[in-house]
Amino acid sequence: MWANNHVKQMLRTDFPIIQAGMAGGVTSPELVAAVSNAGALGTIGAGYLSSAQLEKYINQTKSLTDKPFGVNIFIPSNPKVSEAERNTANRALAHYLEAYDITLPECDSNPSAALFDEQMNILLHYEVPVVSFTFGIPPAPAVAALKQRNITVVGTATTVREAQLNQDAGVDVIVAQGSEAGGHRGTFTSDDSHACIGTMSLVPQMVDAVHVPIIAAGGIMDGRGVLAALALGAEGVQMGTAFVTCAESGANVWHKSAILSANEDQVLLTSSITGKTARGIENQLMRDLQPFENDLPAYPIQHTLTKEIRKRAAEENNPEWMSLWSGQSPRLSTILPAHTIIEKIVQDVEKRIFQFKS
Amino acid sequence: MWANNHVKQMLRTDFPIIQAGMAGGVTSPELVAAVSNAGALGTIGAGYLSSAQLEKYINQTKSLTDKPFGVNIFIPSNPKVSEAERNTANRALAHYLEAYDITLPECDSNPSAALFDEQMNILLHYEVPVVSFTFGIPPAPAVAALKQRNITVVGTATTVREAQLNQDAGVDVIVAQGSEAGGHRGTFTSDDSHACIGTMSLVPQMVDAVHVPIIAAGGIMDGRGVLAALALGAEGVQMGTAFVTCAESGANVWHKSAILSANEDQVLLTSSITGKTARGIENQLMRDLQPFENDLPAYPIQHTLTKEIRKRAAEENNPEWMSLWSGQSPRLSTILPAHTIIEKIVQDVEKRIFQFKS
Repeated sequence: MWANNHVKQMLRTDFPIIQAGMAGGVTSPELVAAVSNAGALGTIGAGYLSSAQLEKYINQTKSLTDKPFGVNIFIPSNPKVSEAERNTANRALAHYLEAYDITLPECDSNPSAALFDEQMNILLHYEVPVVSFTFGIPPAPAVAALKQRNITVVGTATTVREAQLNQDAGVDVIVAQGSEAGGHRGTFTSDDSHACIGTMSLVPQMVDAVHVPIIAAGGIMDGRGVLAALALGAEGVQMGTAFVTCAESGANVWHKSAILSANEDQVLLTSSITGKTARGIENQLMRDLQPFENDLPAYPIQHTLTKEIRKRAAEENNPEWMSLWSGQSPRLSTILPAHTIIEKIVQDVEKRIFQFKS
Repeated sequence: MWANNHVKQMLRTDFPIIQAGMAGGVTSPELVAAVSNAGALGTIGAGYLSSAQLEKYINQTKSLTDKPFGVNIFIPSNPKVSEAERNTANRALAHYLEAYDITLPECDSNPSAALFDEQMNILLHYEVPVVSFTFGIPPAPAVAALKQRNITVVGTATTVREAQLNQDAGVDVIVAQGSEAGGHRGTFTSDDSHACIGTMSLVPQMVDAVHVPIIAAGGIMDGRGVLAALALGAEGVQMGTAFVTCAESGANVWHKSAILSANEDQVLLTSSITGKTARGIENQLMRDLQPFENDLPAYPIQHTLTKEIRKRAAEENNPEWMSLWSGQSPRLSTILPAHTIIEKIVQDVEKRIFQFKS
């Protein structure tokens, strides 16, 4: 199972382990290359990258590794935002805007559809070995173009139905994102309260319903989680939080230290920071915005409205005003280098398989 | 690990598998005995049973099995209920009360503290082999009295801190209740939104923090889940939903069929039905009460206020007005006899361990 599986072949890696393509600067070329050099799949989180930035990331990563790596991009959405929602955002963020002497940015047009096409062109041009998608189903022409270049296509699903839609779209592998996962929920078919399924429940139900290999995500931090995922029928794992705090991660030091010192019951879901439900460590920003949660603009508008505040907070070393995305296993986080995390997982999985026999 | 573990010794069973002590009639003596006869631990869910009823259940179970079995009881609470909360309940339930031509019952005094003492007396008198507690920490005299009689004491925890409190109280084994679990959350130290940790995250963090053996619960339905729990460091599992639909279960047929036909994204958390957060299949009762969720009486008052309605609905074959507790893996539910469920788990775990080697 561990020694011989489809996912490893599809990813062209030694181990069926993906470092999640977390957007927002965590997935530095150093991190992505370190993960790939260690025999797993590093992934550039390109959700918010322009095509020029993406190109630069790809070239930097290629300069650091000859191994395969992946890029994650977002399926675009184009929500309508009402005047009332914008006013609510202004009111909810007033204290923050005043503190930084800034105003809410304009978000009349949504560039994400154009951005998607530009990102796809770069991925096709560079023939990036693995491309993964979040927040929806990749359009048929995109899937076809990737497959034509022998690029492995990875979808994301938070329910069995979402896995079936990914399978119908022709993806090669599906990441089952359990409710433990940090950062944004990948949910795209239902409201998030209905699609918050724990990894232990989600994986076997998804494995039974589709024939595409399943990669488990959510709460997996070490060899125990990896072996558990394989036991559930997954053929690989995707790990995010485990790599946020690692030595090569590009995450802000306050983000890292918040995870390293957090308990499992301090990591909550909220849609108030970006307009899309995401899991992170509770802080003042989350508490302040929570009462407005149902009346704020949808993603990506709310994301854009709070982005400058969170950026400034990071610059000014104020973790209470940042977004501190994390999964539900912060007690298992470490500052080890990526290759050590992966080596330890491989050793621990093998040790535990051996112990099972005795 | 599977062959030789502490939990099996403590439970005096062939397999480290507990059938959860679900209250409300699911755990018929036939179910409890069938599970124990199959080599796992059947458990009488005695949370709502009077001492006379409990005595009868114990005697009936003993007449059906010579194997060890357990009893689960609730740690009492004594919430104050405001006039406003009672009025909200009356308003929220008006349609239901009218349909059944009933009025809200009075709940001035809370009998649960006296009930607890009576239940404890019965458990001590019959020297029930295993006693498990939910909704809090068993008081020191209760733990001492049980231990004196060589009765194994099982606590329930939904966070690492709750596990530490259980360990400090001297329990022998701790059930880690992950967020996937059906029925009531066992949370007793924090608000439920902070204590909704997926099994994949909860188990290893708890294993690292306490030395008492951990039993994983939440989302475990078959050999895959059992093996995953062991991989995470648990030394056993507790399964509830898997036994609700089984042949010997005392669950109402509409409850069974609701689980058998549900999808994973139809199982939601609500505190509106009983005043304590519980997971069940979304139906009209849940939807109707949801808007009032934050303004209703606490558990067990709201439980008492809605009990008659749910009982009548069950009698009248109306699953939309019942409580349909279920975990997040309803697609894995079966109508097999309990012994077949357990046999299949044991075979599947052994098969999967063998496959890991290859």
